[in-house]
Amino acid sequence: MNYAMIFYLLGRVVQVVGAMMAAPFIVSLVYSEKAGWYYLFCGIAMFIVGTLLTIRKPKKTAFYAKDGFVMTSLSWIVLSAAGALPFWLSGEIPSYVDALFECISGFTTTGASIVPAVEDLSRCTNFWRCFIQLIGGMGVLVFLLALLPLTGGRDLYIMKAESPGPSVGKLAPKVRQTAYYLYIIYFFLTAALFVSLLIAGMPVYDALCTALATTSTGGFGVKNDSLGGYSHTIQYIVAGFLFFAGLNYNFYFFLWTRRFKEAFSIEEIRAYAVAFWGAVALIAVNLVSAGTYGAEPAFRHAFFQVGSIMTTAGFSSVDFENWPALSREIMICLMLVGGCAGSTSGGIKVSRIQIYVKMLARELSSLCHPKSVRVICMDGKRVSSDVLRSTMVFLAAYVVIFAASILLVSLDGYDFTTDFTAVASALGNIGPGFSLVGPARNFAFFSDFSKAVLMFDMLAGRLELFPMLVLLSPATWRKN
Amino acid sequence: MNYAMIFYLLGRVVQVVGAMMAAPFIVSLVYSEKAGWYYLFCGIAMFIVGTLLTIRKPKKTAFYAKDGFVMTSLSWIVLSAAGALPFWLSGEIPSYVDALFECISGFTTTGASIVPAVEDLSRCTNFWRCFIQLIGGMGVLVFLLALLPLTGGRDLYIMKAESPGPSVGKLAPKVRQTAYYLYIIYFFLTAALFVSLLIAGMPVYDALCTALATTSTGGFGVKNDSLGGYSHTIQYIVAGFLFFAGLNYNFYFFLWTRRFKEAFSIEEIRAYAVAFWGAVALIAVNLVSAGTYGAEPAFRHAFFQVGSIMTTAGFSSVDFENWPALSREIMICLMLVGGCAGSTSGGIKVSRIQIYVKMLARELSSLCHPKSVRVICMDGKRVSSDVLRSTMVFLAAYVVIFAASILLVSLDGYDFTTDFTAVASALGNIGPGFSLVGPARNFAFFSDFSKAVLMFDMLAGRLELFPMLVLLSPATWRKN
Repeated sequence: MNYAMIFYLLGRVVQVVGAMMAAPFIVSLVYSEKAGWYYLFCGIAMFIVGTLLTIRKPKKTAFYAKDGFVMTSLSWIVLSAAGALPFWLSGEIPSYVDALFECISGFTTTGASIVPAVEDLSRCTNFWRCFIQLIGGMGVLVFLLALLPLTGGRDLYIMKAESPGPSVGKLAPKVRQTAYYLYIIYFFLTAALFVSLLIAGMPVYDALCTALATTSTGGFGVKNDSLGGYSHTIQYIVAGFLFFAGLNYNFYFFLWTRRFKEAFSIEEIRAYAVAFWGAVALIAVNLVSAGTYGAEPAFRHAFFQVGSIMTTAGFSSVDFENWPALSREIMICLMLVGGCAGSTSGGIKVSRIQIYVKMLARELSSLCHPKSVRVICMDGKRVSSDVLRSTMVFLAAYVVIFAASILLVSLDGYDFTTDFTAVASALGNIGPGFSLVGPARNFAFFSDFSKAVLMFDMLAGRLELFPMLVLLSPATWRKN
Repeated sequence: MNYAMIFYLLGRVVQVVGAMMAAPFIVSLVYSEKAGWYYLFCGIAMFIVGTLLTIRKPKKTAFYAKDGFVMTSLSWIVLSAAGALPFWLSGEIPSYVDALFECISGFTTTGASIVPAVEDLSRCTNFWRCFIQLIGGMGVLVFLLALLPLTGGRDLYIMKAESPGPSVGKLAPKVRQTAYYLYIIYFFLTAALFVSLLIAGMPVYDALCTALATTSTGGFGVKNDSLGGYSHTIQYIVAGFLFFAGLNYNFYFFLWTRRFKEAFSIEEIRAYAVAFWGAVALIAVNLVSAGTYGAEPAFRHAFFQVGSIMTTAGFSSVDFENWPALSREIMICLMLVGGCAGSTSGGIKVSRIQIYVKMLARELSSLCHPKSVRVICMDGKRVSSDVLRSTMVFLAAYVVIFAASILLVSLDGYDFTTDFTAVASALGNIGPGFSLVGPARNFAFFSDFSKAVLMFDMLAGRLELFPMLVLLSPATWRKN
C-alpha cells in the first residue's frame, strides 16, 4: 500500500473542500448572514491543513488497484467529515452525527435529510447543501483529475472506482481529457437549467440551488415542501432536466461530436426512455383511475416523481406517500433500478438490469439448447466475461448489503416499509422513501447507529459497492 | 418438441393423481365422511383418463432438455388442476380458483391457504391437503422415476428440472436409483416423526397429517392456530424435525452408507446450522429483551419459527406478527434464504448464498490483485463456471420475478409489507408472511388475478424458476 500517496491525496481533498467553502461564504455576504463566517474559518483552516499535507509530493507516485479503491473510499469519508464541520460549528445542525449524515447525503447526491424544516437554515448553509451535491455528482476525484496531473498514469483506477456503471466508457484516450469532457457537459446542463428556471420566474437563489441539486440528481431542496410550492412550469422544467440528468453522458458526448446516429442508438438510453415513460404512463393512469388527481396533475406529478425517483434525485412535487399501491410500488422498483450508467444517478443502473435480462435469456436458451453458444452484446459489442461476472457479483453484493442493512436498522424497531425503503433510498442515493421516511418526513428519528449504517450505505451506493467493501475487507490490510 | 412423449407423461401424472386419491377416501371411510366419495369418483375418473392416455407408449421416447423442462412445468400444472377438483366438487372450497390455489400451495409445499378456518373442512380433505405436500416435497416426477423406467435414459433432464439446488448431486450412478434412495430417506424421516408425535401424545390423525406436512416442509395444519395449541413437547419435536428436513439429503445418504466424516464436512450443512442457530439465538434474545416472552417460551418460539420459516414449512406456534422489528426482519431474510439444496425446502437455498458470498470475496480479491486467479470450491471441489453462471442468473431471475410479482399484486391496493411478504412467501414456498398475510390470517382476500400471480410464483419457486420461465419463453415454442 502506497501510504504516502494516500495521505497526499487526502491532503488534496481537504484543500479542495477548504477552497470550495469560499462559495457559501460569498452567498452569506450577499445575504449578510453570520453563519458564513464559519464557512470562511473552516475553509481557511482546511486549506492550510491540506496545503501542509501536500507540500511534499511523494517520491513514489505509482500505485495499484487496491490503493486506488482505498484512496477513493477514504477520500469520500474525509471529504464528508470535513464538509460537515460548518453545519455543526455554526450550530445549525447541533449533533455532529447528524451533520455528517447530512453532508454524506449531500456529497453522495442522496438528498436524505435530518433537518426537520430546511427553511429554518441560513441561506449559505442551504447553498452549501446543494453545492456539495454538484461536486459529489460527477465525482470529487474525477474533478481533481480534470485539474491536476496527479498520479502518473494510474488515474484509471480512481476513475473506475468513482464512476458509476458496469464499465467506464472512456470518452477520450486520456483519463484527464475524459474527466474534462464530463465536467463540461455537466456544467452546461446545470447552467441551462439555471437559466430556464430564471426565465420561468424562479428567484435567483432558489433557481441556483435547485439547478445544483437537479443535474447532480441530489435532491436537496431549499423549501420545506421541496418543489411542491413552485409553479407548474417550474415543476415541468425540473422534471425534464431530471430525465436528461439520468441519461448516459456518452449520449451528450456523441451529440457534442456530432455523432447523432451513435447517440440515439445507445441501447441503455432506449431502455431507460422506455422504462421512464412507461412508468410515467402507468402511474398517471393509476392516479387518474384511483381518483387521486385529474388528468393534468396526474401526468405532472407522475412525470415529476418518476424523474425524481428513477434518476435518484429525490425531490417531491407532492406527498406521494398517499398514492395508490401500484404507483407506490412502481416507485419502489424504480428506486432499485436507478438511471443510466455514466450519469450522475444512483441505483443498480439500467445497463446492469439489461445485462441481467440478457443473461437470463441466454441461460434459458442454453438450457433448451445445451450445445449452443451465444455471446452477450451491448451496442453491438460483445460484453467481456469479466464485465458479466462483475455485474452479476454486483447484484449479489447489493442484495447482501441491502439485507444486512435492513437487519441492522430494524434494531430501532420501526416497520418493514420504513426500514426497506430507508435502506433502498440510502443505497440508491435517492432521498425519500415511504412510511416514516416518506417525502414529507425526514431521517432525524433514527438512532445514531442506524444513521451510521445508512451513511455507509450512501457511500457504498455512490461508489458502487466495491470500493467500500475493499476498504472493509481484512484482506486489503493484510501484508503480503 | 416430442409432443407424444409429453402427452404420455401427462397421462401418467393424471393416473398417479387418481391413484393417490384412494388415500383420502380411506380416511373418509374411517371417519364416515361423505366428502370422501368425491375423492373416490374423481380418483377413478382420473385413473381411467390417465390409463387411456397412456395405453399407447410413444414410439420415440427420446427427448431433449427443452422437452424435459416443458414436461416438468406442464406436469405440475396438470397435477394441481386435477388435484384441486375434489376440493371444489365437494363444495368445501366453493371457488375453483381458490381450490387450485390451495392445491398448488399443497403440491409446491408452500402451505399458504385460502381457507379461513381449516377445522371446518372434512378430515379427508385436510388429509388430502397434507398428503399432496408429501408427494410434492420430493417431486412427483422423481416419484414416477423411482417406479417406472420412463424415458430411455433421459431422466436426468427431469430430475434436474424438479430437484432443488444449484447442482443435482447424484447419489447413485443411475437416476432411478438416486430417486429411490431419496424417497427411502424421506419416508423414514416422516415415519420417525409420526411415531415421535404419537409417543408425545398427539392424536393419530393429527400426528399423521403433521408428519406429512413437516418433512415435506409444507406447513398445512389441521388446526386453525396451526401448532399453537399443542403441547410444548410436540412443538419441540416438530421444530427439531423441521431442522432435519432442511438438511441436504446427501447428509443422510452419507450417514446411511456410514461415511460419517463426509456427512459432517458438507459445507452447506455447516453454514445452514450456523445460520439456523444464529437466527434462533438472535430472535430469542430479542424476544426476551423486548419483554415479549420469558426465557423458555422465547427459545421455543424462536426455535420453532426459525425452523418453520427457514425450511419454508410455514407452521406457526404463535402469531409472530406482533414480534419486535428485528425478529420480524430476520424472519423476512430467512424467507429469502431457505434451507439446503437437496432438501424439500424452498427459497434461494443456503448453498447458493454461499456461492454468492464466495464470488463476492473472489471479486474483491481480484479487484485488488487483478492478475491473481482464484477458483471457487465447495466441499473441496471446484465449482464449474457453468454452475457459477447459472447460480448468478438464478439470483437475477429471482429478483426480476419478485419485482414483477409485487407490481402485479399491488394492483389490489394493499400495503407494501403484505405484497412483499406474500410474494416472498409464494416464491419461497413458505406459507405465511407478514401484515395481511400474517400467520393468523390467510390469502383468501386477494383478487383472482393476484392469486394467479402467486400460483405462478409458487410453481416457479418449487421448480427453481427456470422450468416455468422456459415454458413461458416464446423461443421454446418457436419452430427451429
